[in-house]
Amino acid sequence: MAFSRVEQATLRANTLNVLSKTFGGLTAIMSLSLLAPYAFAVLNNERDQWTYLSIAGIGLIVGGLLFIRDIGDAKLRARQVFMLTTLCWLYASLFAALPLMLAGAKLSWTDAWFEAMSAITTTGSTVVSGLDQLPQSYLLWRGILQWLGGVGIIVMAMAILPFLQVGGMRLFQAESSDISGKFMPRSSHMVWAIARIYLLLSALIVLCYYVFGMSGFDAFVHAMTTVATGGFSNYDASFGAFNDTPALVWLGTLFMAASALPFVLYIRLLKGETRPLREDPQVRAFLLFLLVVIAALSLIDYFEEDGRSGFDAVTHTAFNVVSVVTTTGYASEDYTRWGSWAMMAFFYLTFVGGCTGSTAGGMKIFRFQLSQLLLRKQFLKLIHPSLISAQRYQDRQVDDSLLGSIVAFCFMYFILVAAVAFVLTLFGLDFMTAISGSATAVSNVGPGLGEIIGPAGNFLSLPDGAKITLIFAMLCGRLEIITVLILLHKRYWQY
Amino acid sequence: MAFSRVEQATLRANTLNVLSKTFGGLTAIMSLSLLAPYAFAVLNNERDQWTYLSIAGIGLIVGGLLFIRDIGDAKLRARQVFMLTTLCWLYASLFAALPLMLAGAKLSWTDAWFEAMSAITTTGSTVVSGLDQLPQSYLLWRGILQWLGGVGIIVMAMAILPFLQVGGMRLFQAESSDISGKFMPRSSHMVWAIARIYLLLSALIVLCYYVFGMSGFDAFVHAMTTVATGGFSNYDASFGAFNDTPALVWLGTLFMAASALPFVLYIRLLKGETRPLREDPQVRAFLLFLLVVIAALSLIDYFEEDGRSGFDAVTHTAFNVVSVVTTTGYASEDYTRWGSWAMMAFFYLTFVGGCTGSTAGGMKIFRFQLSQLLLRKQFLKLIHPSLISAQRYQDRQVDDSLLGSIVAFCFMYFILVAAVAFVLTLFGLDFMTAISGSATAVSNVGPGLGEIIGPAGNFLSLPDGAKITLIFAMLCGRLEIITVLILLHKRYWQY
Repeated sequence: MAFSRVEQATLRANTLNVLSKTFGGLTAIMSLSLLAPYAFAVLNNERDQWTYLSIAGIGLIVGGLLFIRDIGDAKLRARQVFMLTTLCWLYASLFAALPLMLAGAKLSWTDAWFEAMSAITTTGSTVVSGLDQLPQSYLLWRGILQWLGGVGIIVMAMAILPFLQVGGMRLFQAESSDISGKFMPRSSHMVWAIARIYLLLSALIVLCYYVFGMSGFDAFVHAMTTVATGGFSNYDASFGAFNDTPALVWLGTLFMAASALPFVLYIRLLKGETRPLREDPQVRAFLLFLLVVIAALSLIDYFEEDGRSGFDAVTHTAFNVVSVVTTTGYASEDYTRWGSWAMMAFFYLTFVGGCTGSTAGGMKIFRFQLSQLLLRKQFLKLIHPSLISAQRYQDRQVDDSLLGSIVAFCFMYFILVAAVAFVLTLFGLDFMTAISGSATAVSNVGPGLGEIIGPAGNFLSLPDGAKITLIFAMLCGRLEIITVLILLHKRYWQY
Repeated sequence: MAFSRVEQATLRANTLNVLSKTFGGLTAIMSLSLLAPYAFAVLNNERDQWTYLSIAGIGLIVGGLLFIRDIGDAKLRARQVFMLTTLCWLYASLFAALPLMLAGAKLSWTDAWFEAMSAITTTGSTVVSGLDQLPQSYLLWRGILQWLGGVGIIVMAMAILPFLQVGGMRLFQAESSDISGKFMPRSSHMVWAIARIYLLLSALIVLCYYVFGMSGFDAFVHAMTTVATGGFSNYDASFGAFNDTPALVWLGTLFMAASALPFVLYIRLLKGETRPLREDPQVRAFLLFLLVVIAALSLIDYFEEDGRSGFDAVTHTAFNVVSVVTTTGYASEDYTRWGSWAMMAFFYLTFVGGCTGSTAGGMKIFRFQLSQLLLRKQFLKLIHPSLISAQRYQDRQVDDSLLGSIVAFCFMYFILVAAVAFVLTLFGLDFMTAISGSATAVSNVGPGLGEIIGPAGNFLSLPDGAKITLIFAMLCGRLEIITVLILLHKRYWQY
């Protein structure tokens, strides 16, 4: 594993070059996006016009200059990419926090950082209360951040993570991608195709929301936070603000589920190929899982709650189950009031997550499918000791090394949730707030359980230490954990 | 996998023969043991003398006759042994429940079954309150049941489970044991050696407890429930009844830890070989883990609780940590009152468990060590993609198939705890009672968290459905889960 001094120096220079170019690009994109809240601030004659404009202006100039700088053919190794990826998301959260701190609700720096990280990781936990009274420009910025975070995560899941071999993601590596040890993102063609689909889906959601009764502004912001499976809303009541129109609640359910499917399948759908979407094992398992859980919980809810109509039970069970499983985190009702069975169920659902290659977080369906393969193999081996079974998933052979990386991912997931929860109790949080807060942050869902951070609550009252712990948890969860934690391994820093 | 009809018929006949002989043996042993409570009942002139004597008498005759019947050379296959093992423990819990139902506290049948299952699985959760007022004969029976359960589990872990290849236990399979597919317990010589060590250790604990101030009866019963890592006490205050004598609290800590070490190492210790005990990787990891946890929690406790002396903090932290990790379940204090950090910590500790080949339950230290090997391998592979590392544990090569069975065990563990917790919420239990009750039952620890079933509480007030769910959980946990769950797999019943 020894590198020559020259190689090391080149590598270090390359890393810095790529880092500054990427930071520049991120700054430029976010500054450009900031012109939208600026426009709304001007239109509505709000106070914070100049704040938005000056951040956007400085960002565009500095970011633009850094981005257009020619850095030549800067080759990196996988090891550097772990750090680059983590630093990029960290940097983006800090830049995104500036307007949240300086305009609108004028949050403290920890609150602004928390809100920004929650936004770009598409978590959707919020420290802002009184959303209904906030200026539109501020609400728009929150929505835009989630939207940007959403497309960012898809690109990362398609282009970077399979290459990094994180948590079994190489199952989704295209045949053509380069695994020789040099970093090269999957064809930029793919990235543009994804971006186009993302835009199209967003536009479709805006249109549907608007047609079925949302105001134009609400339709726009909620479409952005739906497609990103983010869950920020313009109302303290979250999606519950639209409960009078069941059609909107069902549309929300539908689009949240759609946003948790692998976007690459939509590309093929647009080319007229419906088979990949219909026959993808991850999609089938995901939809089947949703159906079974919704049916079971609707039944329990219907029999437990007096005077609730069957339709009402199904509507709200479906919405909130899909919201939590897709890691969106809207709430149409305070589902924790349905009973302690609901708390337990939603706590478990927090871990599940959507499909890989979507905006959804969580452990992801394919990992459960592969874990189940493993369990099944063990049982069969105990029953028929002489049986030899080959494991296949998505037409690929599943070897032990792949299973190993998925299992390691699952273990890391539980260890991280447990460790974060324990740290939260040291800041004085109670058992349920700590464990559900940790799970919801690592899975990028949004609401936790209990009075404080439950679907009817808010993260505002937590101590700063707890908020910073949760910022770390959201970041880890979004980057499939290992991308971040590997940086804490002492061997990572040894050449 | 097809068997001829003749083979099937022979196998079925053999299974029934072995089953009746084992049931007979179990009945005879328990009936013989019941003569001790009978003797105490006579000495103390208690009411229930005839109840004990009649159960013991009938049991000795019927059990004895079944046991001495010659069944020839009844060969079994592994598949039959899963069912036999489960049925034996189920039967033992039912027979053990008879005196608990008919004498002393005269429990209802669910309560008696719960208490009996809790006893023989060495869990130590109790539905009896007002222990301090109960007749000695009754308390003695509870202690004897745990003591018998303790030796039963060691024999099972040494002789049966490695052969069944359950959850990675074959790591502890002696070279000489037969793995050709026919069932044969590890040499009966080993079983007797274990029984002798168990008796010796029990006697040593009785002596120490007595010398340092317990009454003879208390020393006797608490020694039995210590060596079994069971945790039944003669007092509602549990081991806290002896808090006035810190020496006893420390002795309890010491002996609980000693009872969670692999008993096979004590056999070699008696032969003068101290090296195996000193250098066993499982023992070293276990003791190191205890030291680190005790040090960390003592520090937190010392700084958080006003007016607590350092010695007091260490004493009670050490006692309760060791009690939960060894799955004993005594409590010297209500540690859940120390803070929510303590609740979280003790919740996690519930899962850990002691060493394999001891009376302790839980997930067991060696599984954590092997999981950590797996994690380490994954991280190193990401950092140095070309690295190939061999994994070794206890001088044995750890192959992927062994890791697979350990990982499957861990997954089953979490799934079972989650499923049981959800069922408990359907019976109306709150979130924390349900999740901690499930964990404490599957790990065979004893106390849960919260007001109801916490260390200061009692399982009496739970609804019958919840108690039966927990009976199932305790049984699964004690038999390394897969032994029981495999019976629910449809392929198990197909030839």
